Amino acid sequence: MANFQKLTSRAEDYSKWYNELVVKADLAEQSAVRGCMVIKPYGYAIWETIQSELDRRFKEQGVKNAYFPLLIPKSFLSREAEHVEGFAKECAVVTHHRLMNDPNGKGVVVDPNAKLEEELVIRPTSETIIWNTYKNWISSYRDLPILCNQWCNVMRWEMRTRLFLRTAEFLWQEGHTAHATKEEAEDYARKMLDVYADFAENVMAIPVIKGVKSPNERFAGALNTYCIEAMMQDGKALQAGTSHFLGQNFAKSFEVQFLSKENKYEYVWATSWGVSTRLMGALIMTHSDDNGLVLPPHLAPIQVVFVPIFKKEEDLNKLLEKINPIADNLKKMGIRVKVDTADNMTPGYKFADYELKGVPVRLAMGGRDLENGTIEVARRDTLTKETVSIDHIEEVIKNLLEEIQTNCYKKALDYRTANIRECDSYEQFKTEIQKGGFLLCHWDGTPETEERIKNETKATIRCIPLEALPGYKEESGKCMVTGKPSAKRVVFAIAY
Amino acid sequence: MANFQKLTSRAEDYSKWYNELVVKADLAEQSAVRGCMVIKPYGYAIWETIQSELDRRFKEQGVKNAYFPLLIPKSFLSREAEHVEGFAKECAVVTHHRLMNDPNGKGVVVDPNAKLEEELVIRPTSETIIWNTYKNWISSYRDLPILCNQWCNVMRWEMRTRLFLRTAEFLWQEGHTAHATKEEAEDYARKMLDVYADFAENVMAIPVIKGVKSPNERFAGALNTYCIEAMMQDGKALQAGTSHFLGQNFAKSFEVQFLSKENKYEYVWATSWGVSTRLMGALIMTHSDDNGLVLPPHLAPIQVVFVPIFKKEEDLNKLLEKINPIADNLKKMGIRVKVDTADNMTPGYKFADYELKGVPVRLAMGGRDLENGTIEVARRDTLTKETVSIDHIEEVIKNLLEEIQTNCYKKALDYRTANIRECDSYEQFKTEIQKGGFLLCHWDGTPETEERIKNETKATIRCIPLEALPGYKEESGKCMVTGKPSAKRVVFAIAY
Repeated sequence: MANFQKLTSRAEDYSKWYNELVVKADLAEQSAVRGCMVIKPYGYAIWETIQSELDRRFKEQGVKNAYFPLLIPKSFLSREAEHVEGFAKECAVVTHHRLMNDPNGKGVVVDPNAKLEEELVIRPTSETIIWNTYKNWISSYRDLPILCNQWCNVMRWEMRTRLFLRTAEFLWQEGHTAHATKEEAEDYARKMLDVYADFAENVMAIPVIKGVKSPNERFAGALNTYCIEAMMQDGKALQAGTSHFLGQNFAKSFEVQFLSKENKYEYVWATSWGVSTRLMGALIMTHSDDNGLVLPPHLAPIQVVFVPIFKKEEDLNKLLEKINPIADNLKKMGIRVKVDTADNMTPGYKFADYELKGVPVRLAMGGRDLENGTIEVARRDTLTKETVSIDHIEEVIKNLLEEIQTNCYKKALDYRTANIRECDSYEQFKTEIQKGGFLLCHWDGTPETEERIKNETKATIRCIPLEALPGYKEESGKCMVTGKPSAKRVVFAIAY
Repeated sequence: MANFQKLTSRAEDYSKWYNELVVKADLAEQSAVRGCMVIKPYGYAIWETIQSELDRRFKEQGVKNAYFPLLIPKSFLSREAEHVEGFAKECAVVTHHRLMNDPNGKGVVVDPNAKLEEELVIRPTSETIIWNTYKNWISSYRDLPILCNQWCNVMRWEMRTRLFLRTAEFLWQEGHTAHATKEEAEDYARKMLDVYADFAENVMAIPVIKGVKSPNERFAGALNTYCIEAMMQDGKALQAGTSHFLGQNFAKSFEVQFLSKENKYEYVWATSWGVSTRLMGALIMTHSDDNGLVLPPHLAPIQVVFVPIFKKEEDLNKLLEKINPIADNLKKMGIRVKVDTADNMTPGYKFADYELKGVPVRLAMGGRDLENGTIEVARRDTLTKETVSIDHIEEVIKNLLEEIQTNCYKKALDYRTANIRECDSYEQFKTEIQKGGFLLCHWDGTPETEERIKNETKATIRCIPLEALPGYKEESGKCMVTGKPSAKRVVFAIAY
């Protein structure tokens, strides 16, 4: 049962609002295992839609799904030098393969005789085990490209966790491709970034900035990390997806060579790219309000809910005579519909529950509507309602869902636009950045300057945009900190 | 590149034939981690179809997907007494959460300061963590039933592993339901068995016997384990799916009570049910032959492949003018089609490759076919081919796919029928069981007798059939070992 104690408002405590919303809207909860979440059916249904929309797009790019082992031999992690430095330390380590009855009493203990010769690590990401596998798949240019993806769980031992945003275990997809040429690999990494951006904007209704990471923020082992960055309603940045050009680093570490058309042995070129259940966090923090979740229709498990208002069962039956054919027509149009006939909850309770859960369109019908041939249509995004004729209601609803989808995106874009600004003085920057939002600044391109800004303000370079942001021109200038030349402005923000 | 060295024949060495086939048909391979497999794209595509067909059927039964943590606190496993005895010993144990640079040189070692207070186990199955979660979800009869499923990886530290059949890590789905009454829970466990049987027979074309396990073969913690049992081409049995009625065991172990309509606190009733990537093994061993994989069309990632026979590109283009419209029509009919235009492999090579990979229908077209308006249609199941007119070829292919699906099932059913027999003498049983197949015998219902038969012959009771097998009558009799009364015959076999 949902709990209708009012949510903490965003203005009051944004972070608390988020935590409460995730739990009250039945999306996820903490489990008995520190840092690991339970994704509840309603939250998982959203993730399933995310998966199917992405999966279809991947397959259009020639990607095939596969599955690689959960466990990675410890020694693999140190093969690629930067990878292990940047990454692979905080992880779950399997050291034994058996439990036994406790000789001193009840319960079970680890069997000391079942110690593994080499410890295994639960994958924090799979480049190492996958490139160790690709070695056996690749011998000639004819075997290339390889375009694989896996949907799986991964684990990174995070100290401070938050549902969806930062959890020890999370679900994701990781694509790993192998190519004969540098150019092809770079193109592919870029192409997958476009796939992510298209998905974020058209399905999740989240406007994103496509860019490239500064060296400090790059994936450990990558030559280039492309990313999409989104702005949350508190003005913080959230990295919503990354696509890495890995060069020949992993091929060299795992000795993966191919015989080229010119009959020469060459190292293979690689990319990897991923998005995770973190997207659920982005979704919530982009659209939701103080009444609960707001879902863009393309992702909503229930797009339209009918709530008949009745006291007696015969009243319900009369209402259903009108409602069911409409619901059936909507289903045939591919719309996800629920008719809520439960008689142990009041309409008021139901209204509040569907509002909390972000159902885009709520349709209520009572006795008077039946007489008048009308129905009440309530929009979740604007919280407005109006009573309309049920003639051609299917078309009305179909169009309304698209209108809501567009409006969710527009609202988020307007918010972002209002919270992006240029800044040319580092003194001003220090104050401005605390107000939230994205600051477009000149930067001299050095890790030292970036590091200093981070230490002094907590802000990082979210990305070097691939193209000028709407309403801005690309222009050279001088670094706001050192005054050294800068080719173009980069995006600074405090990030999740 | 596929390797066309001939497969070991089934007659020569069935087990070797299986192992070679799995690798050569590009389904799966061993990984660098002992007992863990890599599921290759072609094998994974079959698994994806299995998933989507099952998932649709689950959702029709009201099931919702969710996700529960990979790691389970060690103490959870000993909460349900039988569960830990039967089950939870051979498993991967996480004891530390950090690696560190080796102070003595290169590489990484486990950080001794990062020892966990309580060890965590990688789930061998999730009853414990799920019932610990359900405790928070259930307070009243209004919260019931809960019908959850998760698609995930699980791990059991098997000593002797074989691809798909027995691996340390495998993929599966596990459904876990919670009910207010015993009757409803038992019904649900039975209903899911029917879902599995329907799927096995109509999608996988595998005839199965629905039955209930003897107490010895029951899931640890269950009051009743329902199962579907299939016969492989070597006469051995393979358990293809199980559905457990768990009674109130887990509810009691994890203190899950609900307030009933009568305002009394009662323990919740439970079921769990699962199928795994083991089904891939069943699929292979039911249908395939000495030339490679045979796939029932409903599961084939490629149902129809076109192989144009050409030397020059202009010849290919002429052929494609005919082929492409047909391929497009087939796709519109929902058929999975590939047109193989690769020019770096001979048609002979392609024919052998698609045969090895079990593509149900292969269509070849060359210059003469173009003149005659014909196409060569080859069936994988019967290895027959014939040249037919391309007029209305789409309908011909559509019907042919259904015919192949039916034929795959019929062939498997005929094989099973020919290898089931009654046996009333234990002396005879000892010889007969070595010939393979299922023996229908009377049994006195005691674990002791079952245990004795197992020790002396390696045969186990695969199930007590829910209904008489086709061609057999249900009849009482006397146990073949002890002569004690038996209500009906049970199925004995040597099993995978």
